[in-house]
Amino acid sequence: MILRCMSCKKTFNPTKGLMTCDQCGDLYGTLEVIYDYQAIRDEKPTFSPYASVFDWGPLLPIKSHTPLDKTIGSTPLYHFYHLNFLEHLMIKNDGLLFSGSLKDRASIVAINRCIEEGYDTIACASTGNAAASLALLSAHTHLKTEIFIPKGTPKGKLSQLKLSGAKLHVVDGSYEKAFENSMKAIKKNHWYTRNSAINPYLLEGKKTVAYEILIQNNLNVPDYCFVSVGDGTIISGVIKGFEEFRAIGLIDHVPKVIGVQSDRSKNIYLTFKKGPPYQLVLEPSITLADSISVNQPRDFLKACIYMEKNGGHYITVGDDEILMAIKEMTELTGVFAEPAGATPYAGLKKMINNGTIKKSDQVVLLVSGSGLKDPNAYEKGLKDGIFKL
Amino acid sequence: MILRCMSCKKTFNPTKGLMTCDQCGDLYGTLEVIYDYQAIRDEKPTFSPYASVFDWGPLLPIKSHTPLDKTIGSTPLYHFYHLNFLEHLMIKNDGLLFSGSLKDRASIVAINRCIEEGYDTIACASTGNAAASLALLSAHTHLKTEIFIPKGTPKGKLSQLKLSGAKLHVVDGSYEKAFENSMKAIKKNHWYTRNSAINPYLLEGKKTVAYEILIQNNLNVPDYCFVSVGDGTIISGVIKGFEEFRAIGLIDHVPKVIGVQSDRSKNIYLTFKKGPPYQLVLEPSITLADSISVNQPRDFLKACIYMEKNGGHYITVGDDEILMAIKEMTELTGVFAEPAGATPYAGLKKMINNGTIKKSDQVVLLVSGSGLKDPNAYEKGLKDGIFKL
Repeated sequence: MILRCMSCKKTFNPTKGLMTCDQCGDLYGTLEVIYDYQAIRDEKPTFSPYASVFDWGPLLPIKSHTPLDKTIGSTPLYHFYHLNFLEHLMIKNDGLLFSGSLKDRASIVAINRCIEEGYDTIACASTGNAAASLALLSAHTHLKTEIFIPKGTPKGKLSQLKLSGAKLHVVDGSYEKAFENSMKAIKKNHWYTRNSAINPYLLEGKKTVAYEILIQNNLNVPDYCFVSVGDGTIISGVIKGFEEFRAIGLIDHVPKVIGVQSDRSKNIYLTFKKGPPYQLVLEPSITLADSISVNQPRDFLKACIYMEKNGGHYITVGDDEILMAIKEMTELTGVFAEPAGATPYAGLKKMINNGTIKKSDQVVLLVSGSGLKDPNAYEKGLKDGIFKL
Repeated sequence: MILRCMSCKKTFNPTKGLMTCDQCGDLYGTLEVIYDYQAIRDEKPTFSPYASVFDWGPLLPIKSHTPLDKTIGSTPLYHFYHLNFLEHLMIKNDGLLFSGSLKDRASIVAINRCIEEGYDTIACASTGNAAASLALLSAHTHLKTEIFIPKGTPKGKLSQLKLSGAKLHVVDGSYEKAFENSMKAIKKNHWYTRNSAINPYLLEGKKTVAYEILIQNNLNVPDYCFVSVGDGTIISGVIKGFEEFRAIGLIDHVPKVIGVQSDRSKNIYLTFKKGPPYQLVLEPSITLADSISVNQPRDFLKACIYMEKNGGHYITVGDDEILMAIKEMTELTGVFAEPAGATPYAGLKKMINNGTIKKSDQVVLLVSGSGLKDPNAYEKGLKDGIFKL
């Protein structure tokens, strides 16, 4: 396993604290974790449908060091048949992970790397889910945990954070301000960082959701996979996961990945649309889908370059459509998601309505967070008359 | 498989709609589901640590009829070692089931029985979790769902219910009033009932959590299993599950089960203390642990008779201790539970402090519901100065 810079192609051996390329700077994460795919392919590995994040052997940058590790991962993949708009819909429910969001996949990898590299403190800035995930998963370890969140983090996430025993810094500003503050403190105090895009290992945790989708679906490749997009790390992980399964010969093609942003926070959509070389478009952003409300998406480079290779693309949906999706998906499937978790459903409906997706296409939606994280969200839909209950 | 009345010992073949003994009345569920344990024992069955509720073959009253079934069950069993008060603590986390509570195990069995018996409507009264579970798990089926809940159901549960598409009857009164109203409507409209204690099959779903604890712990029998108690159905299920594994020869002794009630809702504790023949003690009850706030626990007979056989007993803890347990358990383990889910931890701490449980005892706590179900609960602990954050 090596680290390689996406911009200048320089390679690195993983050493303590190394997270960014010394030539390309540390504002945006450009380091990728690369494995010897041919060697893995030659070993013809098999994997279990019950695999945890730590059961992907040669495709991981880390070993397990805590007793919780093997319980993280292997979330359900639901199959719904004969819907009026689709013959076969799959939902991957990461709302059922330890802290109620997909971020657990990244946090548990970061915690183990932090322990392995010998740090005693781990820190992150977050819109809420990454923070809650890190705080709860590190609670039983010897690590100290420092959390930076913006004001206005939803009820469920805040309750998890307050009770976890982590040190909480509530920042009077946006996610970007929390991010800045955290980076200053991390540098000053020599903490381990779990910040999205900066830490290249987070993606290695997140990609396991793509492995699980394929393995649980008996290596049948869905036509489309819908993913909501904020910072760009989850979607980069998903695309990398699919691609790696192709690289080791388990599948011969990959699902087309559709990244869904709110039209009130769409800087990756805009950046990708402009085409390469990718220069981040910066429009002021704020969506009610708090988990994907990001002004300055730090993983835009991977999110764009990986997407180009995948052959998928980005779309946007309105906040009204996101609210409607929470209601429709719950009524139709029983899967109750937070706004960012219902955003893929909104994207699917949009592409069905405009005729891009046919009834016979096999589609998987990635639900990245539980509806219980933000139990008030749907009330805006009621108040604005978007739907009735 | 037969049904047998615990009171008069009359046996029945399971027929459509049969839930209560025609001699002993229908106020309290007295019917037990009994299998041919010797025949099962002779077959020497083996089970997977990844078994869903529907993977226990001959120990089940029902087959699977919905595509979600095989995704319900197999929640994580966490191991925490070398705590300052216990060498080995296990936590069974049913807060990670589909709707965030153990009630999913019962709902999914009831839904399948309802479909198999040919009903088109399923109904229940609930303090919140059973209702949310039924409403979300039935959402994707053709069944109509009728829900009766008391006013004051916590935020998380209410949001699930409102979005599920189930018909919601909010009753201005206690759980008992909601229960009464539901029973009237069920009789009048010939609906299938998912009411606790009335429907004998619910326990068959709930018992699977005990199977999982044993199988996931490699059939090593813990010394103690702590369970919070409201209506008495969960604890009856847990004891029955352990007992059935003994009956089919997979273990030679069972864990001692400790039922934990709030001292503000302790009618099973009082009834068990008075001894047989068990006559339900009825003291007015209200605890902040809403899931176990029950005046008239309808499964008291099984909860007492099964407990007598198990050799365990009931204890009570204060609501302050429950609030403190939410905080302590989250800080120590990262497992964030609703009040009823943290109640077993409060019971454990009490029995450690009074010397009944030794540091070397192996203890498993059953967490029956996620903390995200009731994200405001801990605030009372803050307000009352029980703890600081």
